[in-house]
Amino acid sequence: MRSAKEELEKQAQEAKVASRKLSQLSTIAKNKALHSISDKLLDRKEEVLAANKRDCEEARAAGMNASMLDRLILTDERLASIASDVRSVEALPDPVGESFDSHTLPNGIQLSKKRVPIGIIASIYESRPNVTIDISTLCLKSGNAIILRGGKEALRSNAALVKIVQEASYSNGIPEGAIQFVKSPDRSLIIHLLKMREIIDLIIPRGGAGLVKIVRDNATVPIIASGIGVCHTYVDASANLDKATAIAYNAKVQRPSVCNAMECLLVHKDIAEDYLPMIALRWSEAGVEMHCDQRSFKILNPITSLKLIPATEQDWGKEFLALIVAVRVVDSLDDAIQHIERYGSGHSEAIVADDYSSAMRFLNEVDAAAVYANASTRFTDGSQFGLGAEIGISTQKLHARGPLGLKELTTYKWVALGNGQVRP
Amino acid sequence: MRSAKEELEKQAQEAKVASRKLSQLSTIAKNKALHSISDKLLDRKEEVLAANKRDCEEARAAGMNASMLDRLILTDERLASIASDVRSVEALPDPVGESFDSHTLPNGIQLSKKRVPIGIIASIYESRPNVTIDISTLCLKSGNAIILRGGKEALRSNAALVKIVQEASYSNGIPEGAIQFVKSPDRSLIIHLLKMREIIDLIIPRGGAGLVKIVRDNATVPIIASGIGVCHTYVDASANLDKATAIAYNAKVQRPSVCNAMECLLVHKDIAEDYLPMIALRWSEAGVEMHCDQRSFKILNPITSLKLIPATEQDWGKEFLALIVAVRVVDSLDDAIQHIERYGSGHSEAIVADDYSSAMRFLNEVDAAAVYANASTRFTDGSQFGLGAEIGISTQKLHARGPLGLKELTTYKWVALGNGQVRP
Repeated sequence: MRSAKEELEKQAQEAKVASRKLSQLSTIAKNKALHSISDKLLDRKEEVLAANKRDCEEARAAGMNASMLDRLILTDERLASIASDVRSVEALPDPVGESFDSHTLPNGIQLSKKRVPIGIIASIYESRPNVTIDISTLCLKSGNAIILRGGKEALRSNAALVKIVQEASYSNGIPEGAIQFVKSPDRSLIIHLLKMREIIDLIIPRGGAGLVKIVRDNATVPIIASGIGVCHTYVDASANLDKATAIAYNAKVQRPSVCNAMECLLVHKDIAEDYLPMIALRWSEAGVEMHCDQRSFKILNPITSLKLIPATEQDWGKEFLALIVAVRVVDSLDDAIQHIERYGSGHSEAIVADDYSSAMRFLNEVDAAAVYANASTRFTDGSQFGLGAEIGISTQKLHARGPLGLKELTTYKWVALGNGQVRP
Repeated sequence: MRSAKEELEKQAQEAKVASRKLSQLSTIAKNKALHSISDKLLDRKEEVLAANKRDCEEARAAGMNASMLDRLILTDERLASIASDVRSVEALPDPVGESFDSHTLPNGIQLSKKRVPIGIIASIYESRPNVTIDISTLCLKSGNAIILRGGKEALRSNAALVKIVQEASYSNGIPEGAIQFVKSPDRSLIIHLLKMREIIDLIIPRGGAGLVKIVRDNATVPIIASGIGVCHTYVDASANLDKATAIAYNAKVQRPSVCNAMECLLVHKDIAEDYLPMIALRWSEAGVEMHCDQRSFKILNPITSLKLIPATEQDWGKEFLALIVAVRVVDSLDDAIQHIERYGSGHSEAIVADDYSSAMRFLNEVDAAAVYANASTRFTDGSQFGLGAEIGISTQKLHARGPLGLKELTTYKWVALGNGQVRP
């Protein structure tokens, strides 16, 4: 019998063979497969829901908490929404084949860059079974073969979903082997996968900070890490306080569990006494707990209805992903920028200011995937930014920054058309 | 006293502080420093040449071979050429600050991508002291702070060059600390450097396969590896044999020591008897040694003037970087593509063919940074491709492929200009 490692090697080889053919498929051919995946997700929902039910029962028995369990559960509605997302991917323009930067060299060689798939992408992800469909359909559309390694707790759900994707794809002209699913729960396989750089072109981890750290520490395959967001909103002395209240409320409360939600509010000392009570009362209605530095604590403490806790060093740079926010009064724009440089994760950072110079300095000097003047950080998102679907939000600087759409799943090659040119 | 590791940490911190200011400098300010570097390289050539003389004496005493020694030596002419290259970098357009993909979201937010420096780039390189100037000037122009770690054998030359770059830069408004030079020859420092991902944004190794492997195996900082080229030229059954001879001769002979030179010739069986003697006689005049598979050996063996050696498995995929070439007869275009897929390094691959379908299939299906129809692979080069200077040639797929110019030393950030927008 083959070991799990040998099985993985074999799967990767199959993906490589398939990937050359897949990279040559027309948009029409890829869309036909996507259409069928969407249909079959609905036609065969019973088998997916049955598999998911068993995953959920096991997770419940093992004591999984309610919010994790909610991420695991599939329902009729959720499956319908997943199938509808596949239709959206089908409708997106195909980035593969685009020619750009074309020019003719003085010697007559016609040179251009041509957009091509990256090749073989592996994704290591946690919990939510919809990620299986997101990643496989985005990779298919962009012509990439895919190796999927989902979480143990969603093994049956993922296996059922992958089976549908594979059958719908392979019966519609996608080369066999293009979609690989790693069934073994053996964690040492992940380390092995992270070092298969002869064959895998890119690894995309999707999950919590723990997973991303394992990937960063061990990968020799290039990676695009996504999903860690410690976002700040800085309210400048020049801010319109009503706008600042609306923006900070939205950034913290509208969906606190996601990476573009705000985790820390920085307030200029000159307006702290006016502004802090305004936002704190709004937050309080939504049940937000505030971890305040000394100065903000002193200002807010007299308001008895608030949930206030004195902040400690651990609160700065912390990703709460909950109705908790760190609050700090700063002396200047420079102090705000320095706080963000030290504690931010390079995701999304916002200033609220009516002073032109303050806004420009913040936008220019803060180093993050997305910088905002006078808007909520919650907009950093592939569909909000107009990319269509997204596979994640990159907080690294190489290759792609911010929302990763189809184009970010491609690379380019230089194509040179000559008629006998040699270098003098 | 500080340990070498602590010294490196301190240098990286200084680079980080400088990098924020450097990223905000205008093109005029950066060009002023570049202009002064170029001037001072000529004004102070005596100190550079004296330092280089000591490096060369030591290398000669240690038994360095002639070709390595040639790479190490600086002369009046070479320094003049280096100074002139700095003027060329000064003349190149500055990619920083470019806005692209701008659009207004339905809610009124004005969104654009803005090109910004990557931040802090470290380069680990070998031998040739001119690399010190290449890398520092390209990084300066693109607004990146730089940590340089050159080879031990060029330590004095590099130190003298860096001193000039630092003094010319810092006396012309470049923030102090932006150019760091690692003096310690301690090799364990390299491993430490490769893991400083909290502070270094990108590592560019420049050197042989050994260095690149150390970097790939150990780096947790993102890297762009460059410079490994196992390039093939495939002569199709439909090729014009005169063009094929000129192209294969040029690709092998014009400058055999570089990464875009050809290392392996693949010839379709139908034209092998006609073509192989044509190219072999030309190569023979230039002293090229041919490592031939059985079929090509049989065809060429009757010509007594040739340097023929039967090829072994080790000859396929080998980077000779010398007047040696591997030669193989293939049955079909498919066999040629498969050979390249198995043994190529993803650098530059060429087909010589007059058949349209063969050329198109090769260009589409071969996965490399540059693919050529009917031209020499020797053109894969930043200045040949019109990028101006280059910092290397990437054979990886992420971020940038092929010649790396100034633009490839930048990333982007999303800039969102709002007036109070929140996410519904």
